Parts: sequence; structure tokens; C-alpha cells
Amino acid sequence: MPRTINKDTMLCMSLSGRPGNFGTRFHNFLYEELDLNFIYKAFTTQDLRAAIGGIRALGIRGCAVSMPFKEACIEFLDELDASATAIQSVNTIVNDKGWLRAYNTDYIAVTSLLKSHEVPPQSVFVVRGSGGMAKAVLCALRDSGFRSGFVLARNETAGRALAQIYDYQWIKTLDGIKADMLVNVTPIGMAGGPEADDLAFEPDAIEKASTIFDVVALPVETPLIRHASAKGKSVITGADVIALQAVEQFVLYTGLRPNDDQIRRAADFART
Amino acid sequence: MPRTINKDTMLCMSLSGRPGNFGTRFHNFLYEELDLNFIYKAFTTQDLRAAIGGIRALGIRGCAVSMPFKEACIEFLDELDASATAIQSVNTIVNDKGWLRAYNTDYIAVTSLLKSHEVPPQSVFVVRGSGGMAKAVLCALRDSGFRSGFVLARNETAGRALAQIYDYQWIKTLDGIKADMLVNVTPIGMAGGPEADDLAFEPDAIEKASTIFDVVALPVETPLIRHASAKGKSVITGADVIALQAVEQFVLYTGLRPNDDQIRRAADFART
Repeated sequence: MPRTINKDTMLCMSLSGRPGNFGTRFHNFLYEELDLNFIYKAFTTQDLRAAIGGIRALGIRGCAVSMPFKEACIEFLDELDASATAIQSVNTIVNDKGWLRAYNTDYIAVTSLLKSHEVPPQSVFVVRGSGGMAKAVLCALRDSGFRSGFVLARNETAGRALAQIYDYQWIKTLDGIKADMLVNVTPIGMAGGPEADDLAFEPDAIEKASTIFDVVALPVETPLIRHASAKGKSVITGADVIALQAVEQFVLYTGLRPNDDQIRRAADFART
Repeated sequence: MPRTINKDTMLCMSLSGRPGNFGTRFHNFLYEELDLNFIYKAFTTQDLRAAIGGIRALGIRGCAVSMPFKEACIEFLDELDASATAIQSVNTIVNDKGWLRAYNTDYIAVTSLLKSHEVPPQSVFVVRGSGGMAKAVLCALRDSGFRSGFVLARNETAGRALAQIYDYQWIKTLDGIKADMLVNVTPIGMAGGPEADDLAFEPDAIEKASTIFDVVALPVETPLIRHASAKGKSVITGADVIALQAVEQFVLYTGLRPNDDQIRRAADFART
């Protein structure tokens, strides 16, 4: 409880255009669970330079970075970890005595999930989407040894450009492609969105695949994940990604790794 | 508890060279007591400009300012309230949508305590000390209508300069002065200090006075206050000042004034 905050309490925070509650609830749950003298709070800003200057000057221990600051923050930081360099996008800042080192734990989480789900690198995959998160996913796939992949995107310019960076191929439709893994990195299936009830891939494409990966985190079970689970496919969910990337932030800030049970309970708490 | 922090929680803070726990405990106690969605945390900084830029950019609601930042912060603020203008010293910053207005609640608290203790403005007073807090006390005395006063200070240059600002007189000793109110604004009597057991004024001077005012807040009962109380004098303590100035900050940040019982319990909690 706030009464227990004292002069030695460390602050971690987030910066985003529209602050949500997930990170705040996830981290504070674990601080309490592990009895750490930390607090976590979400912020937004109209002045990114001054906000990051404030993180440095006030000794704020860590900061999660979300849209629209993931690329814009880079010029104000001191060092990029390989995870952030790879995609030139930051979602985590760690402050060590005024030295700001940046990471991308989305990339770390995706890499880790591909491994823990034992997706074979020889799998042919299709990533649908061409935004910032698609970049993190494609880079994680390339760095995990996946050689045969396609970027499915309506926007040819963005799709081609993105595919080219990672040496994959742009496609406009799935026609003629037999993919072992289908990855949705669009908002299709997102709660409250215009396509909340839609499947990001056609049922017959899902039928042919072994693994279905959806980065949409809300709901925990998107129509795509529900459909794929019912068909007995191996699934990786956006809820997995969001929890795991938050765990990696937690480890970077505190030096401690919570156990699986603690992570599950923190994620459950954070989603409610 | 931290689990209850959410995206709408407001942060208040302090900036000082050596953060203590009083403000953090006092404010967080009252936030919980009054069920306000606020948290409070103490910070220090090596870069005052960036720290204050961070307060503005992150929308931190309020900031207490202590040594050595009380004068140095002024150039980074947008507006000084009369309480801060009077002594060119800031102990409180309020952030209204990026506009930083500064106050001095020490001045406000001293003014208020002179009134609530019904010290007659025609009283002759002696203020011992010549530092920043002596300035706040002398300015409050002058603005409360006290016309006859002396500044007792070993350092003649500082003492004379300070006395002159407020149209009082510098003295080197109490010899020949009959004061109705004695005010200690030195560290004499402070717990842990080299003069922790000393009286800031001689017993016969105390005997002649009606009111004894000590700004030393720790211990709550300094040797001076204990002695004066035993002699039946009216006393104003540093604990009164520190609690009241914190209350005024609380009111500025939240718009709410706690009741006397809540203030007493918050101050008791903050001191332990």
C-alpha cells in the first residue's frame, strides 16, 4: 500500500500515447508478490525529449515505451541493445545511474516463444501485416533461422519494403502458398475493433498449417486462436507475447525472474 | 497497495539533496486516509533543469523542493506565488497542465501559526539564525505586522543583510534586549547534531518571554521546547511547522484539506 512507499522506493514507468493499465497492474502485482521496494506508473507526454530527460535526471529505473514513441525516443538514449538495434525500435529503457540503454522485449519475447513452442526453423511461414510489430516478428524469425517466409500485406509498397529488409517475399494473397505457420500481426480479431469477429486467415489455410501465432492480445482468445485450438493446432497467443515481453522488462529492471506461476497470476491480474 | 495504482493515478514528489521519509509517509498516509488516487515519492537529482523539465513533461502533479534547490529552481518555473516571491525561495511546485507555479508553504505555515497561537504583532521578537528558513520566518513576521524585531546571528554580514531586508535590527548578543517571543532558526537542539542537548536561548531570556518558537522539527520536543513548556510558556514547535507546511502542499496538490485528526495522525505516522 502507498503507506509503505519510502525514500528508497524505485519507480518504473511507461510512456505511451494512450496509457493503459496492463503494465501498471502486471509490474505492481509482481513487486508486491516478490516484496520488492518498487512502484510502477503509466505516463503520457507531449514532450518526449523532456520526458526522457526527466527519467535520467530523476533516476527513474526503467520505462516501457509504446506507440507513438518507439522510434522517436531513440535519439534521446545512450545505447541500443542488439534487440532494439535489429529493428530500430525501442519498447524498454533501463536507467543505470543516468545511462539509458534501450531494448526491444517484443523481439525478445517472440524469439523466446518460437523456441519454447519448438517451431522448426525450416517451417514456411506467412506473416500478415506490415506495421512496427510485424518488423519485430520478422526480425525474430530471421534471427531464429527461418529462411522461407512471406509477408502478406494489402499495401504493396510497405509490404515489399518490409519483406526485403529480412530477405523474405511479399505476397498479396495466400493463393498457392502452403504455410506451416501463420502469423497475424494486424488488428483483425481485436476486441472492440471493426474486425473483432473476423478470422485473420481462411479456415483452409489454417487447416494446412501446424502453428498459428496471433499477436492480438485482447481478447486472450481471438477468433483465430479459438478456431485454431479447436482444430488441434499449436497456438501462440498475443497474451503470451504481452506477458512475456513484460516479464523481460521486469527482469531488466529488477534483476529478478518471477516463476511461471507468478507470471501467470500477474498476467491474469493485469488483464482484469 | 501498489496493486491499486492504475493509469489515472497522480504522482506527487519531492526533490532534495538528501531525500528523507517525512513527506513520502505524510502524503501517502493521507492519500490512503482520504481514498485519493495519488502516490508520493522522494527523488534527488544531479540535473535540476532536466528534473523540472521531467515534472512538466510527465504531468507530475506537484513537487516539494528542499535544500539545495529552493532558490536554484526558480529560473525553471513559470510563475511564483506571493509566498515564494516574498522570500525568493520555493518549497512547492504545482503543475497545472504543464504550467509550473511555485509557492513557499514554510512562509504560509509560519504566518498561520503566528495567527493561530495569537501572538500579538506588537510583541518584540528575536530570531536567532540567518539561513534560508530565517528568511521565511522574518518575512512572515513582517507581513503579519510585527514591527519590533531583532536578528541574532554570529555572522555579522549575513545577520545585518538579512535584518535589513525586513527592516529589523541585527544584534550580536541578547544583552539588554527584553523579547516577548524567541525564535530559534539554528540547528541547536536538533537530534543527532553537535548541539543536540543545548538550549538555543539562555534560561533567563526564556523566563522573560511569553512565546517560544523553535523551527527544529526533530526531536518533536527539543531541549528549548521542553524547557519552555515546563516554564508554562506558549510554544510553537518545528513539528508544527513541518506538518502544517506539508498540509498546505497537500491542499495545493489535491484541492482537499484534511481535518485536524487526520493531520495529527499523518504527522505521527510520518515521524515514526
